[in-house]
Amino acid sequence: MLTHLFYPQKIALLGASRVPGKVGHDIMANLVDGGYTGTIIPVNPAGGELFGHTVLSSLDAYRGAIDLAIIAVPRSEVMTSARECLQKGARTIAVITAGFKETGRDGAMLEQELAELCRRNGARLLGPNCLGLLNTGHSLNGSFAGAMPKAGRIGVFSQSGALCTSILDVARGRDLGLSKLVSIGNKADITEDDLLEYFGNDPDTDVIVGYLENIVAGDNFIKCATEAASKKPVIILKSGTSQAGRRAAASHTGVMAGTDTAYGAAFKRAGVIRADTFESLFDYATALSMQPLPKGNRVLVVTNAGGPGTMAADAIEHSGMTVAELATNTAASLRERLPTAASVANPIDVLGDAPPARYGETIAAAQNDDEVDAIIIILTPQAMTDPAETARTIARTIDGSKPVLVSFMGGREVMPGADELVKAGLPNFPSPERAVAALKAMYDYAVWKARPPRIVTRFKVNRRRADHIITRSRANNVLQLNEVKTKKILDAYGFAIPPGRLVASAEEAVEHARHIGFPLAMKIVSSDIIHKSEVGGVRLNLTTIQQVRDSYDLMMMRIKQRAPEARIDGIYVEHMGDPGIEVILSMTRDPQFGPMLMFGLGGIFVEVLKDVTFHLAPITHEEAIAMLRSTRSYTILEGKRGGRAVDIDNIATGLQRISQLTTDFPEIIEMEINPFIVGEFGTDPVVADARITLAEPPKRSKSYFLKGQEHGI
Amino acid sequence: MLTHLFYPQKIALLGASRVPGKVGHDIMANLVDGGYTGTIIPVNPAGGELFGHTVLSSLDAYRGAIDLAIIAVPRSEVMTSARECLQKGARTIAVITAGFKETGRDGAMLEQELAELCRRNGARLLGPNCLGLLNTGHSLNGSFAGAMPKAGRIGVFSQSGALCTSILDVARGRDLGLSKLVSIGNKADITEDDLLEYFGNDPDTDVIVGYLENIVAGDNFIKCATEAASKKPVIILKSGTSQAGRRAAASHTGVMAGTDTAYGAAFKRAGVIRADTFESLFDYATALSMQPLPKGNRVLVVTNAGGPGTMAADAIEHSGMTVAELATNTAASLRERLPTAASVANPIDVLGDAPPARYGETIAAAQNDDEVDAIIIILTPQAMTDPAETARTIARTIDGSKPVLVSFMGGREVMPGADELVKAGLPNFPSPERAVAALKAMYDYAVWKARPPRIVTRFKVNRRRADHIITRSRANNVLQLNEVKTKKILDAYGFAIPPGRLVASAEEAVEHARHIGFPLAMKIVSSDIIHKSEVGGVRLNLTTIQQVRDSYDLMMMRIKQRAPEARIDGIYVEHMGDPGIEVILSMTRDPQFGPMLMFGLGGIFVEVLKDVTFHLAPITHEEAIAMLRSTRSYTILEGKRGGRAVDIDNIATGLQRISQLTTDFPEIIEMEINPFIVGEFGTDPVVADARITLAEPPKRSKSYFLKGQEHGI
Repeated sequence: MLTHLFYPQKIALLGASRVPGKVGHDIMANLVDGGYTGTIIPVNPAGGELFGHTVLSSLDAYRGAIDLAIIAVPRSEVMTSARECLQKGARTIAVITAGFKETGRDGAMLEQELAELCRRNGARLLGPNCLGLLNTGHSLNGSFAGAMPKAGRIGVFSQSGALCTSILDVARGRDLGLSKLVSIGNKADITEDDLLEYFGNDPDTDVIVGYLENIVAGDNFIKCATEAASKKPVIILKSGTSQAGRRAAASHTGVMAGTDTAYGAAFKRAGVIRADTFESLFDYATALSMQPLPKGNRVLVVTNAGGPGTMAADAIEHSGMTVAELATNTAASLRERLPTAASVANPIDVLGDAPPARYGETIAAAQNDDEVDAIIIILTPQAMTDPAETARTIARTIDGSKPVLVSFMGGREVMPGADELVKAGLPNFPSPERAVAALKAMYDYAVWKARPPRIVTRFKVNRRRADHIITRSRANNVLQLNEVKTKKILDAYGFAIPPGRLVASAEEAVEHARHIGFPLAMKIVSSDIIHKSEVGGVRLNLTTIQQVRDSYDLMMMRIKQRAPEARIDGIYVEHMGDPGIEVILSMTRDPQFGPMLMFGLGGIFVEVLKDVTFHLAPITHEEAIAMLRSTRSYTILEGKRGGRAVDIDNIATGLQRISQLTTDFPEIIEMEINPFIVGEFGTDPVVADARITLAEPPKRSKSYFLKGQEHGI
Repeated sequence: MLTHLFYPQKIALLGASRVPGKVGHDIMANLVDGGYTGTIIPVNPAGGELFGHTVLSSLDAYRGAIDLAIIAVPRSEVMTSARECLQKGARTIAVITAGFKETGRDGAMLEQELAELCRRNGARLLGPNCLGLLNTGHSLNGSFAGAMPKAGRIGVFSQSGALCTSILDVARGRDLGLSKLVSIGNKADITEDDLLEYFGNDPDTDVIVGYLENIVAGDNFIKCATEAASKKPVIILKSGTSQAGRRAAASHTGVMAGTDTAYGAAFKRAGVIRADTFESLFDYATALSMQPLPKGNRVLVVTNAGGPGTMAADAIEHSGMTVAELATNTAASLRERLPTAASVANPIDVLGDAPPARYGETIAAAQNDDEVDAIIIILTPQAMTDPAETARTIARTIDGSKPVLVSFMGGREVMPGADELVKAGLPNFPSPERAVAALKAMYDYAVWKARPPRIVTRFKVNRRRADHIITRSRANNVLQLNEVKTKKILDAYGFAIPPGRLVASAEEAVEHARHIGFPLAMKIVSSDIIHKSEVGGVRLNLTTIQQVRDSYDLMMMRIKQRAPEARIDGIYVEHMGDPGIEVILSMTRDPQFGPMLMFGLGGIFVEVLKDVTFHLAPITHEEAIAMLRSTRSYTILEGKRGGRAVDIDNIATGLQRISQLTTDFPEIIEMEINPFIVGEFGTDPVVADARITLAEPPKRSKSYFLKGQEHGI
């Protein structure tokens, strides 16, 4: 799809300029300096000559067809220029010019017009408001981001044009090679999704690196990112993680899930390696582009200095990986070969006077040890140290079976060694900690790649019944479903609901109580009251007829005092089952990524400790179990703390059913089962209380609803 | 004290060698290359000449007195050489030679002998097993760590010699100036404490940087570090934070407090800035040596690219600092002066085409804004960007009233700017995140410096009574004090103990029950049983005589079945007060830092969530309150979660009393009040259960006990 963007034969540059510093000048200079071998057609009403090329006063004057047009004219002329280019057969238009969506409403309209124009003509649009693109494999520098970088196998896209300049500059400083770099600007047409797809299939790209500030379409992003990540590592730095803009919402889920939570869940789902800092973006890209993935997390450290070895071991343990234990025969063989003072326990200290050969011997032995999954090599520049020869020895020794990451610690003294490492394709980090962090990113990615196939269970449910309740409620403009209605929906989706009935008088309550048996709960039912217990609307553990009668009267009296405005549907009389552990299962719909499920233990665990986990729907059984496990309070569910173990699978199934329900009904924008009471293995879990919030019904013909997730992604 | 180490007039080098690569050669070369202007006396039995100096075959041949001796002879000759040097009046001996404590028992004995010899002769000893020292202010490079660094105001000590070589190399790479660098090796005499004291008073040193693997004496370290940190920043990287060596201990405190917890508490107490990685050590040193401390945590970001500005804002918020809001008039004035497209909200985006002057104007305005405590400046190398001139403009603009940290993001393109920044003393970081982390370290240190004076309350207690119980127990070799004895000690230290008595028969239990009134608790008392409830040794909420009688019989029967070996002292019958919130107050004695207090909410909070905080004794009231506040469960104590607020001061006082008790009695190696029941404001807190573990009594004349902390540090 993007072939014309990356491999154009003929490029028109509209707005080519002879004034250095002007965008139209710099891009022309970069095209020429980059060694582009195709045809360049500079256009400027002033005509003349530029870098040996004749400048056309109008594109009309050109007789042939073009593939790529780069437009760097003033904003007011962009539409005209675009039309000219399309007439000349341009298949891709890169609009460098700014002043579109980023400036407000007028700009946004103009941008939409521009995108529409391109779409109608079957052309793709890059930008507007971007820095252009580079393709080292085509000697194409169609940007004003900087000079052509070294050719390599890292493909980069960036939503921030300015950051492209730093990326190019840092890549040069690190001697990192790039395959392609694209500034995606306002993303009016070509987005991160297109680039994930393209880079995923690009034979010149081994690692995909991206910088994003937002995402155009959550569903499609997950689809494209998952596909790309299945083929090669995708590393993304997403900024704006701290925005205080937590959505105001009635439920726990809404309050606790910042937008960043959804991004985190989406990246995890899609196997995207998330870089938290600008430096880690390059650290991870360096490691992943140069070394194979580890098969496990047992890391060996080889060092010529004790202190840094300890630092590395600290970092390995803190990262959750393991400090490897050498196999007995490896240790014995090293013990024989290394000097007496050397440590053959991990970290292996080859001593301050280690010559290159001693590094070589040690690494060779470690490489053949099945107890070792990855090797981190540390060098400090001591008196006898020969960094350059050590680097060459390491390069000669390693056989590519396990990832080897290096930290030559220092500045000028280790420089010759660092240069040799780069030449040999060995990732070098200024500190052991950064090498460990990069290895951890590789390991996490390897785990994701090896994940079992995702099989989303479809339960047999009564979808039609749920649909009926939802459709009727919305038709009546009832968007907060009360407990009774919510439980009917949950019942249709296979949840166990305790026997209960909505009653309208104390007599009716008593009659119903006799029918279902004690103990009983009585709860006020009103769409206007979300937190029932705060207004005295909940009575639990009632065991006598008298209590039922008293409770009815007391509740009605108090509600009228405390919530005089609330419309009361009645009081719900419900049988109470055996007590168990109370958990919360809930869902909030992220505007980008759709239904996001939340799990947490009830009470203080959620309210005080925020000990909850999130996952995007649809969820598999394994993923649901993983959600439970990743809470700190999981040991309570396991019964390790004095209590008895609960039926974990019941909770996992509950999450899966919510997943199915909220995927089936995009109209549900929030829901919460709180508490969901789970007992010992083999017992039925019970929905003690629950509520659902629906989206407003469509006002016009156009659908307002957010699109649900596709299944089985 | 260390004047002769750092400013010697005459240096003897024993083991001077003409073989390059040998330590005795390299040190000689470094002494000469470093430009040392005093007298160098190389000594080697072979005699001859070295770098134009006559090599003496024996130090005897030298007629004068020396101040500093550097010994680099084989291990077997070290003692002889040391004696010769001392005879020649050496005031400090630096032993480079290895093969001492680090090699085992024999080496340790030799090391002790060497240290003893120096002590007897009134000389100080550096090392053994070290790389020597450098003093740029005296043109002295008495090390084989590398070439002389640039002179500057950072003083460094390192327990790892090898790391010194990397430190020197990195300092050179960053163009960081050092005042002095010392490799402290095995620390047989001169330790981190000496260097903290010396650097603290050294007019040539503004910032102290250290690398440590362990600490020689906890008390003294805290004293020296606190004194040094009160004068200038002390930044320490302590490795070995992950060692699985958690001490096996019966109490929660012991299990949860790794050795690293104690180091963390000690560093915090002493105002030491802790670096977690090798890079952050330099980042913090750079920032602290170049810029003033911030007066608050409101940070302004100025950038020529939106993306990196957002990254900086993310990092600021994640660090716990605040993204500053500009004063209205500053914003208005910037609005007038900056281009329309620029953002004058923080981060201030001066746009990609920002000339140096635009940076200057913006920084000048921000600098005068009282709502801004610190400024972070970001630059990406865009087409129009002039990094060098921008750096000069920044340098000219800032007035030193607020810290200014810079991130010129890139490689070669920003290099000219980075060089200018170094010249101007402006700390530059490769990424915004690292600039923010350094600023956070500065801010934390500023907060510590501004801390109120520490006033440790001494409560009026019956110390003699506690002493009596402790002494008698140890005399009888009872080291696990049972509940009854522990409560007597706590009573003597002013804790409220519920009325209770140890009984030996069901009848006695009943009689006592009548006396103190219901409800009652009955608990088995045995030094052999630590977890009473696990063997059925606790009955609570007894309300009738019959229950008391039954409980006595049942408990005695079950204990005999479940713990047949345990010696039973009897059953403790105790009045139960009003229920409240259960917390745990405890102490474990760290071998280095003495009594370490722990606080946590009872039950799952400690056991499942490990939601606990630690603090070294002695503790002040403010520090105790801060301990409570730093738990996640603090809101429960405040009564924000439906419950009622408890009397926080009662918990703080409890911690202070434990602090006093365990400081008074170094014999107490562990103790725990669990639960400590606290009620609403104005109610008395109650010690429901408690136990104390004593150290073994001294076997010989030499005291076994760990020294307690001094007060009021």
